[in-house]
Amino acid sequence: MATAETAIFKQQGFGKSLGIGEAPALVIVDFVVAFDDPKLFGGGNIHAAVEKTVGLLAFFREHRLPVAYTRYVFAEDGSDGNLLTAKVPNLKILTEDNPVGFVVRELTPRPGELMVRKRNASAFFQTDFSSWLARLRVDTLVVTGAVTSGCVRATVVDALGYGYRPIVPTDCVGDRAIAPHDAGLFDMQQKYADLYTRDELIAALKPRLGKKVAAE
Amino acid sequence: MATAETAIFKQQGFGKSLGIGEAPALVIVDFVVAFDDPKLFGGGNIHAAVEKTVGLLAFFREHRLPVAYTRYVFAEDGSDGNLLTAKVPNLKILTEDNPVGFVVRELTPRPGELMVRKRNASAFFQTDFSSWLARLRVDTLVVTGAVTSGCVRATVVDALGYGYRPIVPTDCVGDRAIAPHDAGLFDMQQKYADLYTRDELIAALKPRLGKKVAAE
Amino acid sequence: MATAETAIFKQQGFGKSLGIGEAPALVIVDFVVAFDDPKLFGGGNIHAAVEKTVGLLAFFREHRLPVAYTRYVFAEDGSDGNLLTAKVPNLKILTEDNPVGFVVRELTPRPGELMVRKRNASAFFQTDFSSWLARLRVDTLVVTGAVTSGCVRATVVDALGYGYRPIVPTDCVGDRAIAPHDAGLFDMQQKYADLYTRDELIAALKPRLGKKVAAE
Amino acid sequence: MATAETAIFKQQGFGKSLGIGEAPALVIVDFVVAFDDPKLFGGGNIHAAVEKTVGLLAFFREHRLPVAYTRYVFAEDGSDGNLLTAKVPNLKILTEDNPVGFVVRELTPRPGELMVRKRNASAFFQTDFSSWLARLRVDTLVVTGAVTSGCVRATVVDALGYGYRPIVPTDCVGDRAIAPHDAGLFDMQQKYADLYTRDELIAALKPRLGKKVAAE
Repeated sequence: MATAETAIFKQQGFGKSLGIGEAPALVIVDFVVAFDDPKLFGGGNIHAAVEKTVGLLAFFREHRLPVAYTRYVFAEDGSDGNLLTAKVPNLKILTEDNPVGFVVRELTPRPGELMVRKRNASAFFQTDFSSWLARLRVDTLVVTGAVTSGCVRATVVDALGYGYRPIVPTDCVGDRAIAPHDAGLFDMQQKYADLYTRDELIAALKPRLGKKVAAE
Repeated sequence: MATAETAIFKQQGFGKSLGIGEAPALVIVDFVVAFDDPKLFGGGNIHAAVEKTVGLLAFFREHRLPVAYTRYVFAEDGSDGNLLTAKVPNLKILTEDNPVGFVVRELTPRPGELMVRKRNASAFFQTDFSSWLARLRVDTLVVTGAVTSGCVRATVVDALGYGYRPIVPTDCVGDRAIAPHDAGLFDMQQKYADLYTRDELIAALKPRLGKKVAAE
Repeated sequence: MATAETAIFKQQGFGKSLGIGEAPALVIVDFVVAFDDPKLFGGGNIHAAVEKTVGLLAFFREHRLPVAYTRYVFAEDGSDGNLLTAKVPNLKILTEDNPVGFVVRELTPRPGELMVRKRNASAFFQTDFSSWLARLRVDTLVVTGAVTSGCVRATVVDALGYGYRPIVPTDCVGDRAIAPHDAGLFDMQQKYADLYTRDELIAALKPRLGKKVAAE
Repeated sequence: MATAETAIFKQQGFGKSLGIGEAPALVIVDFVVAFDDPKLFGGGNIHAAVEKTVGLLAFFREHRLPVAYTRYVFAEDGSDGNLLTAKVPNLKILTEDNPVGFVVRELTPRPGELMVRKRNASAFFQTDFSSWLARLRVDTLVVTGAVTSGCVRATVVDALGYGYRPIVPTDCVGDRAIAPHDAGLFDMQQKYADLYTRDELIAALKPRLGKKVAAE
């Protein structure tokens, strides 16, 4: 975006930092086979983001921090088709048992990690995700996944509203086209989330977690 | 956006039309003094969008269709400050009695029209807006207001999720910068809403309403 | 309850009638094997209510009115255990594939009817049920099922809030004990719902549906 | 309730204890002038519960624990009337500026304490209450107020769903009639909340808070 365009956001006081809290969790949004496949819903920089997320997931697991995943699940008989599937009918292929709706192999969920089944963009919308975060007393939500301008962004907007500081590792989110990816990151940085690269984020999290472990 | 970038959306089946239902309502999002003033939260094409909305509001009132407004309202004592006001602290000036938080003069609400007080981007988030739409059996929600890439978009995403077909009259929504405005419209058209110009929308609504009146 | 106790409700203006709207739907709450079995979560007048509901379901199907069911579904690995399962641990047996969590044979769902999977008492809580009702432009929700003082009541309270007039056919809801059943009906009648017997309700619905069919 | 009736709850595994967590908050539901006045919505044991709550509020303030209040607020022009006001029309008198809707003098809110304006029974329904609890990392919600079988109970059911352990001090909640009060307490104890008398609760909280202070 032109500098002239971004100046107004600074002048009006947008884009302050939320900071990292004491209790982070990780959510991996829609990194399923279909969103990793350019012939279905993938493309752009999505696969690169999947690969970057592998290391971030390992970090969260190593420190025993909460990990959740989302995937779309629609009924086989079409009974729960909604306005999103009216707008994007192909999403209806993502049923409970269709392997293209499963999380990609590199990020396979482990028993005890939460799987959020959803029928709209946001991980929070009409799901138990916010209650899981509340019970675990999470205060900071690291949001990765696909696509930046869709489910990632909707999840970030809702996370902010529900009271969990959203953090977006910019290289762990991807989109099927780069212009919406970039526009999504810009909007989120100004209004809804703090942005880090994955490695910056890990570096920022490490001392906090160390301290916590040391104190226990 | 480059044609090469948009081709993938068509190929993957995004951007189908939702169509207009039988019972439309209008929501005017955050067209308040502060968002009409470039020194506060305004700028870009917001004021032009306010002016275009005057005629659309007149049309809805003339046909006695439901009209709602939103505005941010935060407590004077800061007790309901949230993560959005952490990210954008200036929003805290929008209290119940501060005139910069009132709907602009051109669009002054009338008694009986709904005012939705909110503390986050979406008109639906933690408000009674969806219940008002349900009681009125609305099926189509025309979303106008500011800003395209923020509260308008968040309202559209939630409208789709709550089961109300979102329609965005592109010249009745505005943003403080044009790049986020355009990116927001692109995303909404592909995934969440049908887009019309104001005059196209009025032309599309007229015959339906005529029929309805004739049938009664 | 003693007459002296109920007098205050009338005097304070509680218990007005909501009336029946134009577009009713039926929800059958938790009439699953486990709630029909006194050794699991059943007992009291639940089975009698199941039997009465058979005729009501037939009526809704015959008039092609929307029908939904709810059942509890918890993950096999315990990852979505919540505070309700902390309070009532046995509920965790109700997994996707455990037949005791399936709707009872007499009320077997048909393809196209909605199944709401839930993890709390209310059919609305963190589910897509309200959006399904909105898309269908339902305005009146007939709530049957088990138990009166638990999931039925929580569903009724939320239906009222979401804008759908709740109607409770008193002989189509049941509870494992009669005192909570009666207390639940009293509270709902005063504050949240209109009460009918099943046959009164069918008689009240019939002329409306006839008119609707005639007009089409 | 007869012992024969309550036996089934124990046998089926209801009524386990949730326990007290690390971070309690207090909510005072609808202890406003109108609910303290038998000629409006009061009566029964409500005023006694107000008096008992004075000491509990003092305890929470002394330990600087979060305190919130709720009150009904409907618009002067009737634009936000809903199905609850259809069922109980008198509630519409509770507008922003009508003193009968203000919290009773004995429990007057202090600046910085949260006021939740609501239009339905539950403090959580279409309000920002859950987000406030999440931001404060509350894990235990002490629910006091009026009436036991209405707004208190609806708040408790939602607290459980949103992930906050509900605790009801039985002598700090009241109802306009004793039978619904008792039935409400029974249901909550079996399915949704832990019950204490006020003094038992303060005794149970004290050592935890002491430890916390000592550790800081």
